[in-house]
Amino acid sequence: MGEAEKAAKQEKQEGQEKQDKREKQDKQKQKKVESLPSKANFSEWYHELIQRAELMDVRYPVKGLYVWFPFGFKLRQLVYGKLREIMDRDHDEVYFPTLIPETELGKEGEHIKGFEDEVYWVTHGGLDELDVKLALRPTSETAMYPMFKLWIRSHTDMPLRVYQIVNIFRYETKHTRPMIRLREITSFKEAHTVHRNFEEAEEQVKMAIGLYKEFYDFLGIPYMVIKRPEWDKFPGAAYTIAFDTIMPDGKTMQIGTVHHLADNFAKTFEIKYETPDGDHSFAHQTCYGISERCVAALISIHGDDQGLVLPFEVSPVQFVIIPVLYKGKEEVVMEASREIESKLKKYGYRVVLDDSDERPGAKYYKWELKGAAIRIEIGPKEVESREITISFRDEKKKSKISVVELTKENIEKWAAEMKKRLRNKALGFMKEKVRYFDAINDIKEWVGEGVALVHFCMSEDCAEVIEKDTSAGILGSFEEKGEWFEGNLEGECIVCGGRGVLSAISKAY
Amino acid sequence: MGEAEKAAKQEKQEGQEKQDKREKQDKQKQKKVESLPSKANFSEWYHELIQRAELMDVRYPVKGLYVWFPFGFKLRQLVYGKLREIMDRDHDEVYFPTLIPETELGKEGEHIKGFEDEVYWVTHGGLDELDVKLALRPTSETAMYPMFKLWIRSHTDMPLRVYQIVNIFRYETKHTRPMIRLREITSFKEAHTVHRNFEEAEEQVKMAIGLYKEFYDFLGIPYMVIKRPEWDKFPGAAYTIAFDTIMPDGKTMQIGTVHHLADNFAKTFEIKYETPDGDHSFAHQTCYGISERCVAALISIHGDDQGLVLPFEVSPVQFVIIPVLYKGKEEVVMEASREIESKLKKYGYRVVLDDSDERPGAKYYKWELKGAAIRIEIGPKEVESREITISFRDEKKKSKISVVELTKENIEKWAAEMKKRLRNKALGFMKEKVRYFDAINDIKEWVGEGVALVHFCMSEDCAEVIEKDTSAGILGSFEEKGEWFEGNLEGECIVCGGRGVLSAISKAY
Repeated sequence: MGEAEKAAKQEKQEGQEKQDKREKQDKQKQKKVESLPSKANFSEWYHELIQRAELMDVRYPVKGLYVWFPFGFKLRQLVYGKLREIMDRDHDEVYFPTLIPETELGKEGEHIKGFEDEVYWVTHGGLDELDVKLALRPTSETAMYPMFKLWIRSHTDMPLRVYQIVNIFRYETKHTRPMIRLREITSFKEAHTVHRNFEEAEEQVKMAIGLYKEFYDFLGIPYMVIKRPEWDKFPGAAYTIAFDTIMPDGKTMQIGTVHHLADNFAKTFEIKYETPDGDHSFAHQTCYGISERCVAALISIHGDDQGLVLPFEVSPVQFVIIPVLYKGKEEVVMEASREIESKLKKYGYRVVLDDSDERPGAKYYKWELKGAAIRIEIGPKEVESREITISFRDEKKKSKISVVELTKENIEKWAAEMKKRLRNKALGFMKEKVRYFDAINDIKEWVGEGVALVHFCMSEDCAEVIEKDTSAGILGSFEEKGEWFEGNLEGECIVCGGRGVLSAISKAY
Repeated sequence: MGEAEKAAKQEKQEGQEKQDKREKQDKQKQKKVESLPSKANFSEWYHELIQRAELMDVRYPVKGLYVWFPFGFKLRQLVYGKLREIMDRDHDEVYFPTLIPETELGKEGEHIKGFEDEVYWVTHGGLDELDVKLALRPTSETAMYPMFKLWIRSHTDMPLRVYQIVNIFRYETKHTRPMIRLREITSFKEAHTVHRNFEEAEEQVKMAIGLYKEFYDFLGIPYMVIKRPEWDKFPGAAYTIAFDTIMPDGKTMQIGTVHHLADNFAKTFEIKYETPDGDHSFAHQTCYGISERCVAALISIHGDDQGLVLPFEVSPVQFVIIPVLYKGKEEVVMEASREIESKLKKYGYRVVLDDSDERPGAKYYKWELKGAAIRIEIGPKEVESREITISFRDEKKKSKISVVELTKENIEKWAAEMKKRLRNKALGFMKEKVRYFDAINDIKEWVGEGVALVHFCMSEDCAEVIEKDTSAGILGSFEEKGEWFEGNLEGECIVCGGRGVLSAISKAY
């Protein structure tokens, strides 16, 4: 064999080796794609789903910070679009600075005590040390309220209702998790309102609870509306009412809070107004917030072993059209597919026509993972009979319908039915996860699997007993009874026998 | 006089004093509202307009940080909505973390040299000192590119085109100014792309220039497309092309930049890909950004002594309807006003029906200040003849039209005409502010009033001569000739007589 021949052979061999390596890599990739852990292992399932469905990239080189992939960003935009729509009815959107001087953050004593362990501090600009340290906002009360002092002069300036959707920062030392426990919360919707007195602020608290219910009902996410105990309220608030949901592993997750601030901050920041009589009074305030935990809850509660399951309205891909191609019939099938694509796009829906070279099975897999709400399959037979095969992400069954049935009206009906199915399934799960106890001994075994309902006096002493005996915490008392409980809101405290109210005990995220 | 009577009298007197005080305050407020400085004093005009038109509150207690009022926030959303629409065609929106570890920020030598003086450093979390200092992103190359390394494996992964709209931070030691020179830039649109080679990245540079032209043409803002000199390019870039506009005071302002990064960052962050032949190559990159200076330019260039003048499409108030009420005719006028309001809202426009108690003059003043694009007045006479009085914010004249002429088609035509008028006026101003020089001596007097065009060799030595002699800087060389210059792109350098290209000298923001 001559040199040239040898070289050619070697090159070919190397080429073959590279080819083999690539194929091996492809197979590994394929295998990796195919092995989403079962949702029964919730923690692992969540972590893998986030990365594989391309919601967030968890590989950013700082603990607790993650990257929103384009697909995840779209989902986030759709969810927050709804939240914006709800807020815009009665609130004005604003933007306040991220950096809060130490002097302002420290003004309200309870508030700074609550946050001092978890605030990030900017101490240097370039090579200079700053005269006054700047905090990265952990929440914006102390950025906003010095300005509210300037904005509120007269009783006619109220109610003031503003909100912003911003990034906030917490120096988390516990285990971090995408969208759930973060060092940068990238999408904190915080609303702040100012009122003439305690009662009007309380009306606002009720209104805010109503808005949050609307939002979570829209997402099909069940919740418990729970008043936090004194020792667990927002630092500086008169009281805190939280929305908690139950995650697949039985732990509770706080997915929204509403705080009545009374005139605590108003006194600190001198937010005073002139009454119609010419007197001066301190204003009363509320604030309420929702973070990207709403997206975490959405994914966790509706998702299944195949991946994301999303309500039609917020699915980044509402329709995926998969042409089933047979030799010689490709063009008619593609033509019919494109026709349907264009019809659905004209209606204003988000549609993907997946004409890639993958096998149909691989396509089904991919779009189930990504939670495409409705799948349409078209093969030569369907073209002939002017039909399509349709299936919904949350159901296992396929059905054939005539192309003419694909009307906007029907689609909206299907979307509503799907939402109802998702919500009912989630509610069914929640009911299973809530159990009433009238003796302390049995609770320990249950919490971790679900939430224990008890009657409880809300004293800190009794709470300590519970925490010691159950290794779980008092979440708070129910503001309203859910569908899951037949008994009374009032009863004897499970610890001291004193007057108690229906309360929840859980392990919480 | 009895005690009770005295007390009553005193109370009445105090009441009267308070009443007087309130009225006096109201008058002062009124007076303050009425005295917007002339635009001839640009700096003062800008500062006052920002506050009074309720764009930003400049009273936040940290230098260089400002608050977006609801009205300003709406304007910002409308402007960025257009930018998003343009970007969304070919780019995916993403979100990367705000905090960049020192180890990543410092990797690219030129880049860190360019930013080390103006980066804010987070050094503490709670009471703990951090192991690795975290920078607040001054721009996101070093946050994104370690991830791009993971995202790009094969030639088929390119082009990658993403963008985000985020807050970025610069420790500015110079004089700060809302939307122009900030410590927190609240709305930085930054796009980042990855390509297979230098040429494909260069195509992207051209595409980006095209997109930015479309954006600024939409806003009616004239620009110069200028290649920055070597010593003024983006730290780490192969070259930088900037959009500069001329502000009312004759200084130039950079309102967008496009950078060709070649493989500089790719080499640092190991962004490599496998070619079709199985070889490995470094990717080539571009990045391009626009900050809220686009809003600053919009306000500054179109505004007048009465306040904001905005293109119809981005005006937060596209129509203001002012009912002119005469006794006995109030109801018919209000009814006709509401009818028009509802018609315009049905078309999808942003409409305010100002039925407040203020005098019509005060209303005109207010809505001129806020740049309502089209004003409609309706009085009893108009109701009778089924007419309305209409005027455009940029014109001084009013005209009567029949109500039936208020069609969507006509409105769009008027909006287009208004845009054309704004653009032509701005372009006329720009032409006046640009002057060609072939001798260095005359330049010094001119710059500060406007931009000096010269032929220039782009050497640093010659630039030093110019800076010394004119107290102004070389902005760069023109990528393309504007309408304002008849001569050649090439010519003799004004300093050394060597081969030169058409260049701009200016004082810059």
